[in-house]
Amino acid sequence: ETSVILYGSLDGGIGYQRIKGDEFKASRKGMINGIRSENQWGLKGTEDLGGGLQAVFRVESGFNLDTGDTSEYDDRLFGRHATLGLQSEAWGRLDLGRQTNIASKYFAEVASPFGEDFNQASVATAFSAADVRYDNMVMYQTPELGGFQFGVGYSFNADGSQQYRLNGGGEPNVRAITTGLLYENGPLEAALTYDQFKTPTAVNDQYDDDERGITVRSWNVAASYDFDVIKLHAGFGQTRNGWFSEMEIGDAGLEELSAVDGLKVNSYVVGVSAPMGNSGEILAAWTMADPRSEDDAKKQNIYSLGYTYALSKRTDLYAIGSYAKNVAFQEDLKATLIGVGMSHKF
Amino acid sequence: ETSVILYGSLDGGIGYQRIKGDEFKASRKGMINGIRSENQWGLKGTEDLGGGLQAVFRVESGFNLDTGDTSEYDDRLFGRHATLGLQSEAWGRLDLGRQTNIASKYFAEVASPFGEDFNQASVATAFSAADVRYDNMVMYQTPELGGFQFGVGYSFNADGSQQYRLNGGGEPNVRAITTGLLYENGPLEAALTYDQFKTPTAVNDQYDDDERGITVRSWNVAASYDFDVIKLHAGFGQTRNGWFSEMEIGDAGLEELSAVDGLKVNSYVVGVSAPMGNSGEILAAWTMADPRSEDDAKKQNIYSLGYTYALSKRTDLYAIGSYAKNVAFQEDLKATLIGVGMSHKF
Amino acid sequence: ETSVILYGSLDGGIGYQRIKGDEFKASRKGMINGIRSENQWGLKGTEDLGGGLQAVFRVESGFNLDTGDTSEYDDRLFGRHATLGLQSEAWGRLDLGRQTNIASKYFAEVASPFGEDFNQASVATAFSAADVRYDNMVMYQTPELGGFQFGVGYSFNADGSQQYRLNGGGEPNVRAITTGLLYENGPLEAALTYDQFKTPTAVNDQYDDDERGITVRSWNVAASYDFDVIKLHAGFGQTRNGWFSEMEIGDAGLEELSAVDGLKVNSYVVGVSAPMGNSGEILAAWTMADPRSEDDAKKQNIYSLGYTYALSKRTDLYAIGSYAKNVAFQEDLKATLIGVGMSHKF
Repeated sequence: ETSVILYGSLDGGIGYQRIKGDEFKASRKGMINGIRSENQWGLKGTEDLGGGLQAVFRVESGFNLDTGDTSEYDDRLFGRHATLGLQSEAWGRLDLGRQTNIASKYFAEVASPFGEDFNQASVATAFSAADVRYDNMVMYQTPELGGFQFGVGYSFNADGSQQYRLNGGGEPNVRAITTGLLYENGPLEAALTYDQFKTPTAVNDQYDDDERGITVRSWNVAASYDFDVIKLHAGFGQTRNGWFSEMEIGDAGLEELSAVDGLKVNSYVVGVSAPMGNSGEILAAWTMADPRSEDDAKKQNIYSLGYTYALSKRTDLYAIGSYAKNVAFQEDLKATLIGVGMSHKF
Repeated sequence: ETSVILYGSLDGGIGYQRIKGDEFKASRKGMINGIRSENQWGLKGTEDLGGGLQAVFRVESGFNLDTGDTSEYDDRLFGRHATLGLQSEAWGRLDLGRQTNIASKYFAEVASPFGEDFNQASVATAFSAADVRYDNMVMYQTPELGGFQFGVGYSFNADGSQQYRLNGGGEPNVRAITTGLLYENGPLEAALTYDQFKTPTAVNDQYDDDERGITVRSWNVAASYDFDVIKLHAGFGQTRNGWFSEMEIGDAGLEELSAVDGLKVNSYVVGVSAPMGNSGEILAAWTMADPRSEDDAKKQNIYSLGYTYALSKRTDLYAIGSYAKNVAFQEDLKATLIGVGMSHKF
Repeated sequence: ETSVILYGSLDGGIGYQRIKGDEFKASRKGMINGIRSENQWGLKGTEDLGGGLQAVFRVESGFNLDTGDTSEYDDRLFGRHATLGLQSEAWGRLDLGRQTNIASKYFAEVASPFGEDFNQASVATAFSAADVRYDNMVMYQTPELGGFQFGVGYSFNADGSQQYRLNGGGEPNVRAITTGLLYENGPLEAALTYDQFKTPTAVNDQYDDDERGITVRSWNVAASYDFDVIKLHAGFGQTRNGWFSEMEIGDAGLEELSAVDGLKVNSYVVGVSAPMGNSGEILAAWTMADPRSEDDAKKQNIYSLGYTYALSKRTDLYAIGSYAKNVAFQEDLKATLIGVGMSHKF
């Protein structure tokens, strides 16, 4: 009688992680979780309203399998997704609420076989806007037309409930725009995305005075081609004046939605995947984030190799190895991840 | 095999809100959510025990669609509802746990077409006890008998887990009573409710010394009559010695379950709703809260106009406009809300 | 189409609790909840992978019926359980994540008719390791073989996400091992379990310097025999150098996973249950925890009497009375619990 679907996915394994600098070394061996994809459960539903129109909703919770706690997103119940909207085959889809930006939806999977998953192998470690969520967003996406899909979203405040503007003073909210184009035609996929956010002009706890009123931009382009025996991925992008997702190692690095006036980072990815027998697949990628504007910031390079083996349509085993150099632009800071795990969808 | 039902509702839109005083103005344009009804999901179940007796339970979570976070209620998982009980057609229903008081159940919908929903258009902005939840409550409600239903609840501590009483000292808990009568007969509905809570007599973090041991009372009466082309609502009530629900604007106003010895507020509502075609309905209401006891406290008046359009039984579009004067009894403090949105039940 | 099962249980009632020392008395009358079993809801699923192999998962949330809030476990969403694993009839079951230790699974129900439930009547108030959960655990359990089942688990950090070890310094995590044997043969059940955890050797916020690097051990043995008209339970165990579960009364007592070098506590339980008619059952138990190593620590004795009446397979009424002396080893500190309630599974 009710069309609600309860869904989710779980992911856990055993791994080794090490972060090493010139005078610093941290390591752990033990349980890993959420590597292939973040642990999550959610509810989604669709109701036919007639005339091809549907009401659609989705709420999604992220959690950690190691402790049972909610994951990042400031401990929010439905931190991964919370939207309500309308969709039709003819007109496309309009959603209101919190969800991922267009770069996460269109760019990440095209640019790398690891997409935005697999921890430090994720394309998002080099491409600032490739794994980001905005609050308070109105998003519209067209239906697929001749292989093309277009999407655009506007967020009234990218992080947290929208603030009131006081006495005609500065804007207290982080306004964000996300847009992009996805093209799919047989073996070819291509994506072009653009994101920007503007830090508050009003005095604000989160941003220092010299970080206010700055417009941070990121554009990204990627293509992939599936030759059957092998699938190639490549992408390029640029982020200016700040950073979208978090890029932190200990005290160093950049917070989520941070502003650094004048910063310019070029991002590169090349990836390849190939089926191995009926159920296996091998994945490899190199990403680089090159901070052009800063003399003491170093190029971050990450080399990743993965393997997945499908036990069923819903359950995978996986192995991952990844090595990162100059992590978060810190000279000689290295990060290593080796792990094996299991992933299950329901 | 299991009788549990997963249910919920979602609500989001676009709106404008402004709060304006003599030397103060705050405004925001953007996403609104939970206006028509708070975003929620829940589980409920019924088990037949034989002899007409049933075990019944319900747990319900409130959240914000703009951020995915849990809503108010101190971030509680099931902050909207958590009860277990027994019910029978012959004997009525007995519940244990956290739930809304009798005034929220019987009075709010009879007194105003907006009920306890639609943000500042809610009857609860003027009637202190019309949208309140108590923890630790034993509640009994009769079955409907000749159009009448009677309910009564006792809360061992209205807000939070019950505290231990130390060394025979004062009572550390907020004891609350809620009771009322609902009458439904064809086009006529009427409700009479009474609520009281007593602040702790023991020394307490939440209450100052002069706020302890005070009994806060609210009684409310309302009737509505459905003339088919139009439905009329009216209500009157009085709250003494404090305030039940929160009535805060910035630093001013009254907290939830607050005590103010000698305060006396008279509350009024007149409302009307009318169908517009097959799927539409127009709603209007005026509420006033008149602080009789305080010279510098001003009468709060709120004028609200709404429209709902049913896309289906489960999905509505709505528009709302509301203007409030002397908000929270503050002279010349005005609050405006204009919004359009969508609401969906599952 | 999806094999996920939504389940849970709820429990609430009315009760009286008193804690009384020489110069101290605290009491409350009111709503009790989670006495017979903690309020919980969860999701679990099983997927056949072929060859007798199954993917299995379970996530479980604990909450309080009196307030709707999440219960203990540091407010974690799935604080009771979060695992993903594989199982087969031939090879047994392997799980990764957070769950109860082997003593909770094998020992508690054999040692006492109250198992780890019924608040202070629980066997866990005397047996330190009988109601404990570890994070970051790899657990393997054999299938039942000739009445025997064996289980073993290793936790990389028993409480919280696993920490990085810095610069080759001390271990920052609480490593834990849990293992045991369960035997079931007709009316006879027996269990033998062993648990240990080692506090961090690295400097740590949670442990003082003299509490670091200590290995805390607990072994436990129990048997029960069902004579049809009556079922007898008995158990014995010892905990050394600390305490596994929390044993706190006000400021006194022992925190969860605490280290006290040289502490030695012997634990005893004798219990009995007997059916009363078709739907009733009477339960009784005595537990003692005897701190052998400390002169000023006193023997804790708890005497408990309970009654359950099944309204259906899923719904029970219950009554409980329990009296504890020298609670948490504090001389003459007494705790009394009297309550009646209802418990419902879905």
